[in-house]
Amino acid sequence: MSVLLGAIEAGGTKFVCVVARDAATILAERRVATTTPAATLGAVEDFFATVSSEMGALSAIGIASFGPLDIRRSSPTYGHLLATPKPGWANADLAARFATRFACPVVLDTDVNAAALAEALHGAARGCGVVVYVTVGTGIGGGIVVRGRAVHGALHPEMGHIRVLRHERDRERSGVCAFHGDCIEGLASGGAIRARYGAPLDRLPAGHEAPEIVGYYLGQLAATIVLMISPERIVFGGGVMNNDRVLPELRSTAARLLNGYLPFAKWPSSLDELIVGPGLGERSGIVGAITLAEAARI
Amino acid sequence: MSVLLGAIEAGGTKFVCVVARDAATILAERRVATTTPAATLGAVEDFFATVSSEMGALSAIGIASFGPLDIRRSSPTYGHLLATPKPGWANADLAARFATRFACPVVLDTDVNAAALAEALHGAARGCGVVVYVTVGTGIGGGIVVRGRAVHGALHPEMGHIRVLRHERDRERSGVCAFHGDCIEGLASGGAIRARYGAPLDRLPAGHEAPEIVGYYLGQLAATIVLMISPERIVFGGGVMNNDRVLPELRSTAARLLNGYLPFAKWPSSLDELIVGPGLGERSGIVGAITLAEAARI
Repeated sequence: MSVLLGAIEAGGTKFVCVVARDAATILAERRVATTTPAATLGAVEDFFATVSSEMGALSAIGIASFGPLDIRRSSPTYGHLLATPKPGWANADLAARFATRFACPVVLDTDVNAAALAEALHGAARGCGVVVYVTVGTGIGGGIVVRGRAVHGALHPEMGHIRVLRHERDRERSGVCAFHGDCIEGLASGGAIRARYGAPLDRLPAGHEAPEIVGYYLGQLAATIVLMISPERIVFGGGVMNNDRVLPELRSTAARLLNGYLPFAKWPSSLDELIVGPGLGERSGIVGAITLAEAARI
Repeated sequence: MSVLLGAIEAGGTKFVCVVARDAATILAERRVATTTPAATLGAVEDFFATVSSEMGALSAIGIASFGPLDIRRSSPTYGHLLATPKPGWANADLAARFATRFACPVVLDTDVNAAALAEALHGAARGCGVVVYVTVGTGIGGGIVVRGRAVHGALHPEMGHIRVLRHERDRERSGVCAFHGDCIEGLASGGAIRARYGAPLDRLPAGHEAPEIVGYYLGQLAATIVLMISPERIVFGGGVMNNDRVLPELRSTAARLLNGYLPFAKWPSSLDELIVGPGLGERSGIVGAITLAEAARI
């Protein structure tokens, strides 16, 4: 009998759920709106139960979720969301009902750790031992994969909250992060862009300064990642990166800051290979969740 | 027959060499001045040969070296120094003559990666899965250990070169780093302190502002490490940290920057456990080299 895996990409607006044989073979898919934990998790459970009644028992379930999330395997609250600002979801247990109902292992990780894993195994960072994935969307977060596994540590990376230097033409408003003001998320996230310019990047006129300024902040993050972790590849995904001026601006700022110091990160050729867009597009989260389920089965 | 390991801590002023059974059992030790590669490496070879003639063949040799260093196992120049400013040492091959003479595996890593390994296995970070070690001496560098092994990636971490915000009372001189000016090494290393104040920290009068300013820069690095990697412990070692005001200033800056965002990094109790001094003192480099030799033997 073939293996059957459940996978969930849990997001702030929707949960993407699939049943799959492996990362390349998705058999069924459903999207569920993120409302309350009871309603959303219940609908996901119903989907898995329906598919399972037709196809057989699930071997494992992988969940890639927004955070902050308790991913310490030894913790009594493993699989719980922590102090998320998302109303009703703080302390929600994402794992228990699935483990009980389907009597199979449930493995969770953050959406960005899962996306890093997916890009490292199946996407733009295949063959790389040290990989960083950064999503630039409503918020900014990152995940790190070393030798095929996500790095957890005390919690999980929260690299969107690193402070950056202000752009010389962007000094008047403070950043929107409630904790840090001028951190990267506070200055370059989708939320920060809407607060500053009144619209997302794709609604601003051609030639607008916003992609340059956003790229300047993200380039500081990229340079810091390169110096801190020495990754073989950094993948930048998320909605803000869909603007095609952001990645070149980001690379050019990173090159200027690194200033030729590192032979593997010189402008332009090696930086173009080091800092890239996602190979899996918007599928890296759900592919990562499938990968988590595959690993759980072993 | 018991195992016999050679280990070298290769530094800019001296090479510390030992023959050991394991990290806790050192049988012989010698210090050799760092002059030319031929003279220094020759003297180290003589020491190993003498001890080996009395005690038996070496099973493996571990080398913890200053950098930048080629530590990619698959590289044709594995074990060579790269573009170090140390006269005569650029492109020096640290590994080949030992491998040839003693016919045993030779494993190299950077001094800070080796120190991170030593602190993770035998020192202040025992039991931690994700560990960062930072040395603050003539220069500033860091190493990362994940699940018992150092993280290499494209090269190795160069976290001393991350840019930082200037302290409000330290705006006049630029930092001393030839590549980046105002990076952490350019502002808070032993070299930067001597350039700015004309003396090392331990020769400045009590109550001098220098430890506060140095701690401010190092605290930015600590906060960035916490957000980027989520380590369970960060160990700060090196000569500058011998000043007992630096670590408290560093922690207090990190706490201010993190601003209570991370439950595991709140001021003061959990930050005092997260950010610590070395458990092995000045021995972390050589203990790390022994650990590299132990791993090479497996």
